[in-house]
Amino acid sequence: MSSNTSRGWVAIAGLGPGPAEWITPEVTAALDEATDLIGYAPYVARVPARDGLQRHGTDNREELGRAGHALRLAAQGHRVVVVSSGDPGVFAMAAAVFEAVERGEPAWRELDIRVLPGISAMFAAASRIGAPLGHDFCAINLSDNLKPWELVEQRLRLAAQGDFVIALYNPLSKARPWQLGRALELLRTEFPESVPVVFATAVGDEREAIDVVPLGEARPERADMRTLVMIGSRQTRLIARAGGAPFVYTPRSVGAAS
Amino acid sequence: MSSNTSRGWVAIAGLGPGPAEWITPEVTAALDEATDLIGYAPYVARVPARDGLQRHGTDNREELGRAGHALRLAAQGHRVVVVSSGDPGVFAMAAAVFEAVERGEPAWRELDIRVLPGISAMFAAASRIGAPLGHDFCAINLSDNLKPWELVEQRLRLAAQGDFVIALYNPLSKARPWQLGRALELLRTEFPESVPVVFATAVGDEREAIDVVPLGEARPERADMRTLVMIGSRQTRLIARAGGAPFVYTPRSVGAAS
Repeated sequence: MSSNTSRGWVAIAGLGPGPAEWITPEVTAALDEATDLIGYAPYVARVPARDGLQRHGTDNREELGRAGHALRLAAQGHRVVVVSSGDPGVFAMAAAVFEAVERGEPAWRELDIRVLPGISAMFAAASRIGAPLGHDFCAINLSDNLKPWELVEQRLRLAAQGDFVIALYNPLSKARPWQLGRALELLRTEFPESVPVVFATAVGDEREAIDVVPLGEARPERADMRTLVMIGSRQTRLIARAGGAPFVYTPRSVGAAS
Repeated sequence: MSSNTSRGWVAIAGLGPGPAEWITPEVTAALDEATDLIGYAPYVARVPARDGLQRHGTDNREELGRAGHALRLAAQGHRVVVVSSGDPGVFAMAAAVFEAVERGEPAWRELDIRVLPGISAMFAAASRIGAPLGHDFCAINLSDNLKPWELVEQRLRLAAQGDFVIALYNPLSKARPWQLGRALELLRTEFPESVPVVFATAVGDEREAIDVVPLGEARPERADMRTLVMIGSRQTRLIARAGGAPFVYTPRSVGAAS
């Protein structure tokens, strides 16, 4: 490798759900050293402009193109940060970059590629109301853009049978209007109607709204593209409070909470 | 409430897996304001001593006692940070605190209790080798201290049938020597032997060691108390590299990787 090439790198960085207080010092340092910033435009816009930093914001659903762009620039010696919201390894850019590495130029495999973890949307959402993910849980991307809907249904059913708490990412969009409704319907056949469902929208910014409703009353209309949905298990509990919304938590022990 | 009482709070904070560069500014700010620090002694020891900060390190498996201690101090007006490694909501102190709230003094429900999310062990481990959690996954606490072993086995089986990637927390300890071996045995009856298994030990510190082996060759002796084990799904892929260990990732699409 030329000395020019050897200086290049790609860091796939998690910005967390939004607020600066959730961005790790590791990510901040990488952003300070970067020559190029690549990602979905609203995430790129979260990083302040500065001299020497080229910002490349792209449309949603352009993940592979974005990943290839980052790898080409790094191969040319650029220091590239690919930004994701939340954690980059969870339904975000890290898998897309490695997919591009596997399909792309053999030289890309030898690049300096690092993943910088971030505060994930589900742990941020959970933190706002208690500890709903305090026992075994699973995370399911509800989008059927990249997998068959039948597989999503199968996973929901198995997760409910195992009494996992379920975090649903990407519950709906304009192009996927009915999937969340179907998922809730299916879960009502597996779980008691009293199981708590958490709708957490825009966690960390001024639009933040969190609602907890029993599964029997959970309506898909409550969610939008910025909502994370969590379905409690049969063990998940509410603690009523005079001064505010109830706490929601799933005990560490099965059957032990009074 | 007296003005003295109204000043008290509890923040259940995630320190991440270890390095300071993974501690969020939000957690750092809470540590700066705290009067009391409570947690498992090795985690308390990670926070530098300073005047005005009382440090209460306790033994492992004392979660409920620790939680009650934190709540009593907050009710007396102290500003208490309860520290966990990783994210406090994942098999850590947040669920224990809410369990203590539910069982304890009614006044505790009205306290200012916040959870401050952190970089979880599984996302930190995943970040070191690629994006193994890039598709649907689940997290299972392998300890049967607080749930029947049969339930652990049932969950492993269902997760494998759903082709979830599986992150195993607390894979073994001196008091639980055989559980990981049984889990791997069970998973070998569900998954092909070629599925990659990641053993990630002491991620983030000088002892860090990460190994990727096929399920058929995965031995429980490789793990210790500081190991997170991840079992890939049938979709998880390795990218061989001339210059180092392979990347491990699970594609976003089912059946799409070449």
